[in-house]
Amino acid sequence: MQKITLLIHCKDQKGIIATVTNFILKVEGNITYLDQHVDMEQNVFFMRLESELTNPASSVEAIRADFQQTIATDFNMSWDLYNKEVKPKMALFVSKYNHCLYDILGRYSAGELNVEIPLIISNHMDLKPIADQFNIPFYHVPFTKDNKVEGEKQQIELLQKHKINFIVLARYMQIITPDLISLYENKIINIHHSFLPAFPGAKPYHSAFKRGVKIIGATSHYVTEELDEGPIIEQDITRVSHINSVDDFIMKGKDLERTVLARAIKLHAERKVMVYSNKTVVFS
Amino acid sequence: MQKITLLIHCKDQKGIIATVTNFILKVEGNITYLDQHVDMEQNVFFMRLESELTNPASSVEAIRADFQQTIATDFNMSWDLYNKEVKPKMALFVSKYNHCLYDILGRYSAGELNVEIPLIISNHMDLKPIADQFNIPFYHVPFTKDNKVEGEKQQIELLQKHKINFIVLARYMQIITPDLISLYENKIINIHHSFLPAFPGAKPYHSAFKRGVKIIGATSHYVTEELDEGPIIEQDITRVSHINSVDDFIMKGKDLERTVLARAIKLHAERKVMVYSNKTVVFS
Amino acid sequence: MQKITLLIHCKDQKGIIATVTNFILKVEGNITYLDQHVDMEQNVFFMRLESELTNPASSVEAIRADFQQTIATDFNMSWDLYNKEVKPKMALFVSKYNHCLYDILGRYSAGELNVEIPLIISNHMDLKPIADQFNIPFYHVPFTKDNKVEGEKQQIELLQKHKINFIVLARYMQIITPDLISLYENKIINIHHSFLPAFPGAKPYHSAFKRGVKIIGATSHYVTEELDEGPIIEQDITRVSHINSVDDFIMKGKDLERTVLARAIKLHAERKVMVYSNKTVVFS
Amino acid sequence: MQKITLLIHCKDQKGIIATVTNFILKVEGNITYLDQHVDMEQNVFFMRLESELTNPASSVEAIRADFQQTIATDFNMSWDLYNKEVKPKMALFVSKYNHCLYDILGRYSAGELNVEIPLIISNHMDLKPIADQFNIPFYHVPFTKDNKVEGEKQQIELLQKHKINFIVLARYMQIITPDLISLYENKIINIHHSFLPAFPGAKPYHSAFKRGVKIIGATSHYVTEELDEGPIIEQDITRVSHINSVDDFIMKGKDLERTVLARAIKLHAERKVMVYSNKTVVFS
Repeated sequence: MQKITLLIHCKDQKGIIATVTNFILKVEGNITYLDQHVDMEQNVFFMRLESELTNPASSVEAIRADFQQTIATDFNMSWDLYNKEVKPKMALFVSKYNHCLYDILGRYSAGELNVEIPLIISNHMDLKPIADQFNIPFYHVPFTKDNKVEGEKQQIELLQKHKINFIVLARYMQIITPDLISLYENKIINIHHSFLPAFPGAKPYHSAFKRGVKIIGATSHYVTEELDEGPIIEQDITRVSHINSVDDFIMKGKDLERTVLARAIKLHAERKVMVYSNKTVVFS
Repeated sequence: MQKITLLIHCKDQKGIIATVTNFILKVEGNITYLDQHVDMEQNVFFMRLESELTNPASSVEAIRADFQQTIATDFNMSWDLYNKEVKPKMALFVSKYNHCLYDILGRYSAGELNVEIPLIISNHMDLKPIADQFNIPFYHVPFTKDNKVEGEKQQIELLQKHKINFIVLARYMQIITPDLISLYENKIINIHHSFLPAFPGAKPYHSAFKRGVKIIGATSHYVTEELDEGPIIEQDITRVSHINSVDDFIMKGKDLERTVLARAIKLHAERKVMVYSNKTVVFS
Repeated sequence: MQKITLLIHCKDQKGIIATVTNFILKVEGNITYLDQHVDMEQNVFFMRLESELTNPASSVEAIRADFQQTIATDFNMSWDLYNKEVKPKMALFVSKYNHCLYDILGRYSAGELNVEIPLIISNHMDLKPIADQFNIPFYHVPFTKDNKVEGEKQQIELLQKHKINFIVLARYMQIITPDLISLYENKIINIHHSFLPAFPGAKPYHSAFKRGVKIIGATSHYVTEELDEGPIIEQDITRVSHINSVDDFIMKGKDLERTVLARAIKLHAERKVMVYSNKTVVFS
Repeated sequence: MQKITLLIHCKDQKGIIATVTNFILKVEGNITYLDQHVDMEQNVFFMRLESELTNPASSVEAIRADFQQTIATDFNMSWDLYNKEVKPKMALFVSKYNHCLYDILGRYSAGELNVEIPLIISNHMDLKPIADQFNIPFYHVPFTKDNKVEGEKQQIELLQKHKINFIVLARYMQIITPDLISLYENKIINIHHSFLPAFPGAKPYHSAFKRGVKIIGATSHYVTEELDEGPIIEQDITRVSHINSVDDFIMKGKDLERTVLARAIKLHAERKVMVYSNKTVVFS
């Protein structure tokens, strides 16, 4: 049976849910999941709906066109309708840290991530053996002060050639350029090794240690031009105490980084995240 | 503006959401919250909806009658429609432990619980001073092997006289009789001091200590005739280690019991819990 | 049997533990708890030891003098030796929020806190009825821009008259003056309603909501002259999501504030916290 | 500098700590970590101590002999003294589930686990490609009702040939035979996919789903002859709700299993776990 996922986002108005669910009824869909959210302050409406198409002859394309014509225009909606079978293509950007890369490729190989990974891009050669080990094409794109323009150009060519839908920075230690960000708006996922907005920027574990916090965290967010200021997808924490050194913080943090990044990837890949006002609605 | 909360529960069928949201539209309601759940295995549909009635002349009673006539019968629904302003009346049953009682009455006095507490019933006199301190009528109903019938009769009379909607057992150490359970089906909330189904029955902290667990828990559930087997509303846990004695378990457990019971009371009082197949759907 | 708690803090040196445990042996003490910590970076040694005095004729005073003379001077120790039976005297400072006050007084009445509470001081009259309800003397010390000097003078007189050992700010919304801080160095416990160092200062829940975090927290710390920058004693967190409004954050936060502050009070009252370099060693 | 880890376990007696720390002083050790625990109920004493040997000429072997002669005999101690540089050798037993295997080998390759992994043993061929991918020798030892004796014999030969110190069952779905258990007492680590003692045995996620719990867990424990009854090393939990299917439980559980097992391996490999009375003392 074909399955579709519908994401909607518009000004809150009377009758949206009734109209949309009537539409699904009309196209012979059986709603298996519906969640909606109203931001009362900003008067914005969000909806996520999953449906099985009970008529095998249904065309997802036709439904898409129908929805645009009969509903989306009237309500002035931002919306997407996905065929659940089509896996999004994900690019991995890495530098030298290997723990998130091992974790993602392990999960990918174990069939836990609903994505395709056509390529890994790195500014260093260090992690190429891991890419080889998992049979993922690895591209070395050096990225220095002097070749930023050239480096970005190469990255974008690779991404477009492989029809990449979204990018995951698995402890990629470089600033993403505005041009790349604008091409992949709300589609570049970063993992920051602190409980944002505490300790943005470099060396957060060292800062956390110095401040004497009792809990450390990790934050996965979409990349925007403001460093570590993008919409937060997922966060988690773990306890630390006076017996833990900075190295312990780093080791415990690796576990957090792995887990939080993996959750964010899953949420994004399953189209459960919507962005507005630099915040996320996560239908999980 | 009048506000209503609608809870629905029926066999899953096509068009329920569209029908219900069309109805709300018809009675000039503005949907501010809608959540639904389909148990795919058992083919059961659940829905919780909050709505503001934009027409000040609307009658909740009339809407109720209208809903029954035009929708509920057709879909063979179990349903409730609450006026959000009407606070449910809650009875507290206690014995000798005071920590949950202090916590509930503190929250109640602070205005955090959307309930009325017309009375406290106890099989001992020990906690009467606390009831007095908070100005809640306290009834001593002794409950021994010999007066079970009489004791239960007194309890039920008190509950009915005060039009009690639901009962909270705040570490009440007596078995509830089947007659009382049948009068308040899914309306008696207990707090058990373990992570159920681990350690049911008496002295769970001692058993947990003996087993050497690294985490202890507390569980709030509706009371059924099977001891500690009723539908679970909420659970939480805390870490323990070899340095903790049984007394430490008990002390840490008190914090859990307080918090978990308070959350369960809030969820129930705000009509966010639905029960089926000895499980709960919690729309939170 | 008499019980003592010994806290030590000095430069790390060879033989400290052997010397101290030999001393306890000499004074006929049975060590029931010993924990120590070495800050390798700063070369500082910390120790907490509990002991039962097996000789009923032992004098805690004599042991104290002996320890100073035979050990503390040699090792240049900062140290304290407490008689476990002597409860510290705690003053509560409150303003208008009542949830922490209810929680602390409920725990106090239930016998969970090893303290005496001789008085409550407030800049407003709002919470006097709660103090009355729990029979704790309540002092109204108004605190405005114009009477800061006078207000502080009254506070200090009250604290000294009642021989207060430490102060708890239970959502007391005033800045503590430097004079009072210097009198109670590392003895004034505050609860801040955020996961510090994120969101210091006013309205942290509003800032957290605006930033779109997925987790909120509360932090209990000793008050220093730098606002919200003092040594952290305890922190905890809870999850939030897009469905939560600022009011939900505030309500969930109340639970955190209560719990985190209560834990910090217990740790301090049981002499489990040592402070250095604006951080805490918590032997728990 | 040479580093040693000393684990002690004996009847509680006066003067143990003083005696042991004096000994370390004598052999020119600088204590960098000391933790001890007294089980007051059973009158048992536990201690873990780490020390740097400041004299480069020190012999760990000589210290070991000295300790036995001068102290261990007198106090009737069970004890171990490890050279921190010697990594324990760990065997992995697997069946068909791959998520724990990927996780462990990823961490191992990333240098996070202080062990050597000389071999993987499995009753199926399914995971051989993963062993190959990470260059770990893989031995297929089929294990059916009819060849139990033969299978066990092969396992033990492989373990002895590779001088294995401890065994990790990474979702190995077979019962371990008593002979193997007695050879590796408290040295076989299992991961059970529930919050023990809730849901022992087969299909715990299905049972948890049926019971309607709000939290699921995973437990790592040493294997004993009683199934799922061995000493617990580590546990952790995650929240579930009515929206989660059994498959969601299984997926969320995989994350728990990975993390909890990895933590248990680390604790064991760093000699932080001591066992008595079917419980663990975990010095972390």
